[in-house]
Amino acid sequence: MTFFAKHYHPPGTTPGSLQAHPQRVRQACSLRLVRYDEPTLDVSEHAEFIAPADDGRLTWLHVQGVASGETLARIGDHFGLHPLALEDIHNAGQRPKVEEYDGLLFLILSLPRIQDDTITVDQVSFFLAPGYVLSFCDGPVNPFDPVLKRLQQRAGKLRSRGPDYLLYALLDTVIDQGFPVLESFGLELEDVEEAVVGNAHRATLARIHRVKRELILLRRMLWPQREVLNALTHQEREQIADGTRVFLRDCYDHTIQIMDLLETYRDMSVSLLDIYLSSVSNRLNEIMRVLTMIATVFIPLTFIVGVYGMNFDANNTSPWAMPELYWYYGYPLVWLLMIAIAVGMLVFFRRRRWL
Amino acid sequence: MTFFAKHYHPPGTTPGSLQAHPQRVRQACSLRLVRYDEPTLDVSEHAEFIAPADDGRLTWLHVQGVASGETLARIGDHFGLHPLALEDIHNAGQRPKVEEYDGLLFLILSLPRIQDDTITVDQVSFFLAPGYVLSFCDGPVNPFDPVLKRLQQRAGKLRSRGPDYLLYALLDTVIDQGFPVLESFGLELEDVEEAVVGNAHRATLARIHRVKRELILLRRMLWPQREVLNALTHQEREQIADGTRVFLRDCYDHTIQIMDLLETYRDMSVSLLDIYLSSVSNRLNEIMRVLTMIATVFIPLTFIVGVYGMNFDANNTSPWAMPELYWYYGYPLVWLLMIAIAVGMLVFFRRRRWL
Amino acid sequence: MTFFAKHYHPPGTTPGSLQAHPQRVRQACSLRLVRYDEPTLDVSEHAEFIAPADDGRLTWLHVQGVASGETLARIGDHFGLHPLALEDIHNAGQRPKVEEYDGLLFLILSLPRIQDDTITVDQVSFFLAPGYVLSFCDGPVNPFDPVLKRLQQRAGKLRSRGPDYLLYALLDTVIDQGFPVLESFGLELEDVEEAVVGNAHRATLARIHRVKRELILLRRMLWPQREVLNALTHQEREQIADGTRVFLRDCYDHTIQIMDLLETYRDMSVSLLDIYLSSVSNRLNEIMRVLTMIATVFIPLTFIVGVYGMNFDANNTSPWAMPELYWYYGYPLVWLLMIAIAVGMLVFFRRRRWL
Amino acid sequence: MTFFAKHYHPPGTTPGSLQAHPQRVRQACSLRLVRYDEPTLDVSEHAEFIAPADDGRLTWLHVQGVASGETLARIGDHFGLHPLALEDIHNAGQRPKVEEYDGLLFLILSLPRIQDDTITVDQVSFFLAPGYVLSFCDGPVNPFDPVLKRLQQRAGKLRSRGPDYLLYALLDTVIDQGFPVLESFGLELEDVEEAVVGNAHRATLARIHRVKRELILLRRMLWPQREVLNALTHQEREQIADGTRVFLRDCYDHTIQIMDLLETYRDMSVSLLDIYLSSVSNRLNEIMRVLTMIATVFIPLTFIVGVYGMNFDANNTSPWAMPELYWYYGYPLVWLLMIAIAVGMLVFFRRRRWL
Amino acid sequence: MTFFAKHYHPPGTTPGSLQAHPQRVRQACSLRLVRYDEPTLDVSEHAEFIAPADDGRLTWLHVQGVASGETLARIGDHFGLHPLALEDIHNAGQRPKVEEYDGLLFLILSLPRIQDDTITVDQVSFFLAPGYVLSFCDGPVNPFDPVLKRLQQRAGKLRSRGPDYLLYALLDTVIDQGFPVLESFGLELEDVEEAVVGNAHRATLARIHRVKRELILLRRMLWPQREVLNALTHQEREQIADGTRVFLRDCYDHTIQIMDLLETYRDMSVSLLDIYLSSVSNRLNEIMRVLTMIATVFIPLTFIVGVYGMNFDANNTSPWAMPELYWYYGYPLVWLLMIAIAVGMLVFFRRRRWL
Repeated sequence: MTFFAKHYHPPGTTPGSLQAHPQRVRQACSLRLVRYDEPTLDVSEHAEFIAPADDGRLTWLHVQGVASGETLARIGDHFGLHPLALEDIHNAGQRPKVEEYDGLLFLILSLPRIQDDTITVDQVSFFLAPGYVLSFCDGPVNPFDPVLKRLQQRAGKLRSRGPDYLLYALLDTVIDQGFPVLESFGLELEDVEEAVVGNAHRATLARIHRVKRELILLRRMLWPQREVLNALTHQEREQIADGTRVFLRDCYDHTIQIMDLLETYRDMSVSLLDIYLSSVSNRLNEIMRVLTMIATVFIPLTFIVGVYGMNFDANNTSPWAMPELYWYYGYPLVWLLMIAIAVGMLVFFRRRRWL
Repeated sequence: MTFFAKHYHPPGTTPGSLQAHPQRVRQACSLRLVRYDEPTLDVSEHAEFIAPADDGRLTWLHVQGVASGETLARIGDHFGLHPLALEDIHNAGQRPKVEEYDGLLFLILSLPRIQDDTITVDQVSFFLAPGYVLSFCDGPVNPFDPVLKRLQQRAGKLRSRGPDYLLYALLDTVIDQGFPVLESFGLELEDVEEAVVGNAHRATLARIHRVKRELILLRRMLWPQREVLNALTHQEREQIADGTRVFLRDCYDHTIQIMDLLETYRDMSVSLLDIYLSSVSNRLNEIMRVLTMIATVFIPLTFIVGVYGMNFDANNTSPWAMPELYWYYGYPLVWLLMIAIAVGMLVFFRRRRWL
Repeated sequence: MTFFAKHYHPPGTTPGSLQAHPQRVRQACSLRLVRYDEPTLDVSEHAEFIAPADDGRLTWLHVQGVASGETLARIGDHFGLHPLALEDIHNAGQRPKVEEYDGLLFLILSLPRIQDDTITVDQVSFFLAPGYVLSFCDGPVNPFDPVLKRLQQRAGKLRSRGPDYLLYALLDTVIDQGFPVLESFGLELEDVEEAVVGNAHRATLARIHRVKRELILLRRMLWPQREVLNALTHQEREQIADGTRVFLRDCYDHTIQIMDLLETYRDMSVSLLDIYLSSVSNRLNEIMRVLTMIATVFIPLTFIVGVYGMNFDANNTSPWAMPELYWYYGYPLVWLLMIAIAVGMLVFFRRRRWL
Repeated sequence: MTFFAKHYHPPGTTPGSLQAHPQRVRQACSLRLVRYDEPTLDVSEHAEFIAPADDGRLTWLHVQGVASGETLARIGDHFGLHPLALEDIHNAGQRPKVEEYDGLLFLILSLPRIQDDTITVDQVSFFLAPGYVLSFCDGPVNPFDPVLKRLQQRAGKLRSRGPDYLLYALLDTVIDQGFPVLESFGLELEDVEEAVVGNAHRATLARIHRVKRELILLRRMLWPQREVLNALTHQEREQIADGTRVFLRDCYDHTIQIMDLLETYRDMSVSLLDIYLSSVSNRLNEIMRVLTMIATVFIPLTFIVGVYGMNFDANNTSPWAMPELYWYYGYPLVWLLMIAIAVGMLVFFRRRRWL
Repeated sequence: MTFFAKHYHPPGTTPGSLQAHPQRVRQACSLRLVRYDEPTLDVSEHAEFIAPADDGRLTWLHVQGVASGETLARIGDHFGLHPLALEDIHNAGQRPKVEEYDGLLFLILSLPRIQDDTITVDQVSFFLAPGYVLSFCDGPVNPFDPVLKRLQQRAGKLRSRGPDYLLYALLDTVIDQGFPVLESFGLELEDVEEAVVGNAHRATLARIHRVKRELILLRRMLWPQREVLNALTHQEREQIADGTRVFLRDCYDHTIQIMDLLETYRDMSVSLLDIYLSSVSNRLNEIMRVLTMIATVFIPLTFIVGVYGMNFDANNTSPWAMPELYWYYGYPLVWLLMIAIAVGMLVFFRRRRWL
């Protein structure tokens, strides 16, 4: 994830513009139209969308991938979507939000995804109106296949309920994607914790940084989802039936759980960095202390052997010229002296609890 | 406690599913049915629950341990519980919350427990409806035995009051479990404090980390209980009589006291880490300072003895070749010089308050 | 002050229990009954309390020290106090709060006290009802002697006003005890500041820690008093006349001033720890830098004298074997070389601003 | 950007004064008057402004650069502007705000601008009244040229809508200038991140500081814009039509996105400083550890060679006088001993994972 | 500024007492009475105040310096001021607040002042009632001279407006005194910043601490002014006309700007401390690294010269006894070996980027 992930038009551009972003990678974009009621279900996968026939069936159009400005404009014309909403879909990297344009509910959410050990966030957008739901996902993988399967298998009450319940099923799928992502984060943090408490390596620092960085960025993308679900749950809206509201409340609860986890992980990653730093410094301290003591024990000894390496005796003319050298037990006495000094220092260090 | 302690179904699963979690340890699950009014009390411990007879007595069903999906579904069918509530009981590790489904009050709380010096949090859930209270606890120990005893001993007003007062008694028991846990935390922190201020060991760091970690995780589990009790106390609810509300207020007060303690402990653990780090670094500094000074005193002395170990005198052809070696008092003078230098340095260090 | 200072009954105990706390030091408990109106005032100090005669005079019962469960129960029966309130008085260490039980106002406050240079917090509780005020203080010293004196000396309007004004006078006395405590804190902090900026000792760290610790604990005990006074001042209550409210507002203002001071002190103590750490590390750095430079200057010199201590000249068979030793000015030249190196290094260090 | 960027009159000056600020650089100030309706558009660039003729056309007066007190007073007189508003335009460096003076809406916003790699913030002010919009920008570059171009090219609905929509177009242009600025910040932060994780230099510290500093200052200037747009969007105002409100909501959304980015960047810059410090200290530790070990290995060896440099053998009169020197294999044995010690120490260090 | 700057009476004192504070420096206190209407203005400087004649003119009484308890009591009696308000004026060091006593508006504000490079805060208090304004300032300098001058010079609308506008003029003067103080802070911070980024000295630490300390204390005194102005502006009050409210809003805006600046400065001072610490540690690291490398290069060389200082050759009886000494090119070879080792180490250090 980059720090600035938003697409935008140059300041001063007419609102609702759908100019191409040259730096954006062009991805194939596919449309899938699902139309169903209790007894029947039709799925058509095709590049061109078909106008919803006035047969009273619910229409779900899903656009997967980065739609070109023209495609968006065409869909917008057909369903009467507001240009600002289309621009928000086009300029991916928006903050999750809920808006209402002329009776149409417009939603933007963030879909976190783990791909090859890195976390990416796709933008998912929804329109809800009587009789239809539009969904857009600009990632490479369609997150809504399980919902389609449930529709086809008639699992739960999806087939018998209105578009608001379909929207809930889609929202729920998007938000619950947070759990596997956060679970993998939790495991990574526990891994890092073990590494930190056990034996801290240099690489651990980079890991902690990576986790902190991803948490900060993920938090920016997921935090507003709580507000979105809150607004959806607690404000009266004609598009959403009371029976669906209780399910949305469950969904809202999940966004809070995700925020709680993100906060906990952040606290934890800060704590781990502290422990890492203390651990590294403790380890260095231990090494330096032992090494310095070895040096300190030898320094007076080296001085003593230096003393008796002096050449004052070379010309033996004075009784003051290093008489020790002429003592019978001079050499062993020096060794005794040195051993005494070394032992004395070690005892002193041990007493002071330095060793 | 692990960082990610929540059970969840794969995103896109039908809401209200009760699929088994393969990684979850299967525990024996026992049901206890208590039915009472002022004069009579029946307790039946059995695996199968009995339908509450319409004899006007209050029914309390308690499920201890991890109930299988089938058991939950059966209980749910019998009492008409909402599938989302059952899923929350099944997917343990939920955030404490209060919900209302069709006139039934549904509560999730966290029950902290000290087991073998580590802290675990069990999930406790309640349903409250006219005439009955259901309680679920997924831990190995039944926390509600004291309440049953009070019922049997007719202590207090428990027998003569309605299900809301029974619920209060259960809630109170769950929340008050926080006090012994926090008391043990307080003692541990005071222990750590003594260790830190006295003489900091490496192991102290791991202890501080363990305390911080457990506080962070405990906080995540206990913090929302305040909101739950607040919602229960301050919102008008038909299931809760006014006479019970004053008791719930006391309960709410306890959740605030627990949060206060958790906040204080967190501040304290941060402060202790600071003190630990300063203490360790102070100690190292003292050691290094003393050792470095020993070395620094000997370094010029070693240089001097080195000077008079040079062999310029070997061939005594020049009056400039180390004439000191030929002085009568050369050797004692060198000793005097060296003692003077050492004393001078020590005085200098002492003056500068380095020693 | 200990980290966990609350007394509590085991979880699951009947609410309103007054069981003895074995670990609590039994203190003598004394009751003082004051009954007065404008013209008359009776004070009776005795262990047993007398029922307030129906003579229209205001009754003030003050209980000093730790009252036994029986005493509390007797007082409770006499005045019709709620068992939960009695339990809160019995289980000292409660959070300050205001409660209303059946028209009786119940208040808990914290009374900070400096005793032998350490800070203790006593629990003070009040009941206010038409015609009487009950006060409880579980410390060894009666803080309300000045109020009694004012009553006896007819100072201010105390004698002519109702029980709400008496309650205000008592609250004001409790809250204003915060000022001398915080003043002594302020002086201690300024003392520490001087110590830190001047010359940091190891003992300063322990002082800073003690201040931070006491601030954290004091904050926990005093912070909720603000809410209590706020609730008392800004909510309509029948027990409190409008004329008294303006005085309570002054009292509330004092709790805010105390919180402001506590916050400022906390910021300050954090800042002082930072400065202390920087100061200590600056000082160590200076020492190490100077010592390391002394060593660094001597190291090449010691190498040089080592060179001319080698014995290649012992058998003078080769012109390549240390010819320097045979030069006429060899020895003085080596001295010159060494002085040049030492001076060169010092100049280099000075140039780089290392010295 | 300087820390204190506000212009102000001396305290006690009459409110609404327009005294010159001597320290302010005098810049040329130009006025541009645009008058248009659906079919016609007139632009007049001139130093003197013309009174808006009563022809029902919309008047937009834009003042670019630092207007003198006289110019401001003249414009104020003509349009009936409040002296406090004029003073706020004159005393640049104000906090963004929205005010209403006698039915006129007055707005101050901050316009961030990148110029030669440094960020500057210009003050932009607006007046909105029925029939006219006044705009002031005290920077050197006119940010509203794209809006004029859109007017001239009849792009979007600008020509057919009222002054509130023109105001929206201007506001949108000002706020969207935040995106390129934040994008460049994001790139700089990613650059710094790479530098920090790779190989930290001294210069990196200055870069991190510069980023943090600019973020703090930018945050102060941009944070209040959120409130301004919020007040504009969510309060009922007669000057703003409902159809424009949906566009202002989009604008408000952008201010939130900008605040989110600023917060994320701040968290990130804090994290980067932590990583930088750890990285630098890790690197130093590694160096010191290796160097200290080299020294530690040689210290005992140097002691040993010192031993056999002593002169006890010079007069070979005692069998105790360094007999090792007379052993046949004495010299190679010493070498073996020294190699054994060195290898032993290296093995010991490696075992302890110090190396 | 001291940490605890509040004057207070001993706890339990009768409210409204005006006892002298022995530690308070007695300052001369002067009263100035100004009475004016549109055409006339009288100023009388005297120690005794004159009762305002009932001639419909506006009365402004200003008390400069520390008024004695008697003076305050006399003024209080004359104007019917509440004893609690008088006590707040007497016990200087109060928190800014707004109170209403029987239709009189009472205000306390903080007046920051730079005197000899240190910042002091004076307490300023106001009473507003129909027909008169009382102001008290306990500092040595009268801050309201510019307002008197404006009255005398008939500048602005001061003469023609009511007492609420006079109060606004006084408030505005007090609050705007914050700007020069904060400007000088800003300059000091920029100075410190330059010092920190350039070359950090020990004295810089003390400067950063001084700035942080003063910011913390100033913040405590100025923060509540925002609330005061907010309450004054946004609550309906009979004493304040609607026409004055727009001016008070401007005043309120200034308090927000001051808080913004204080917050920014605080963030900045924290950031500067971080940079200072990193800078100092960077510098030390550089020194230590270079010095340690010098030592490390010489340590093996010193060992080698030690080897050839051994005396195994003294009695040349074994071919194993240091044969190197007898090689023809022994001495130069040793030099070559040592140079090779030194160069090798330097190359190694450079390769690892340690140098």
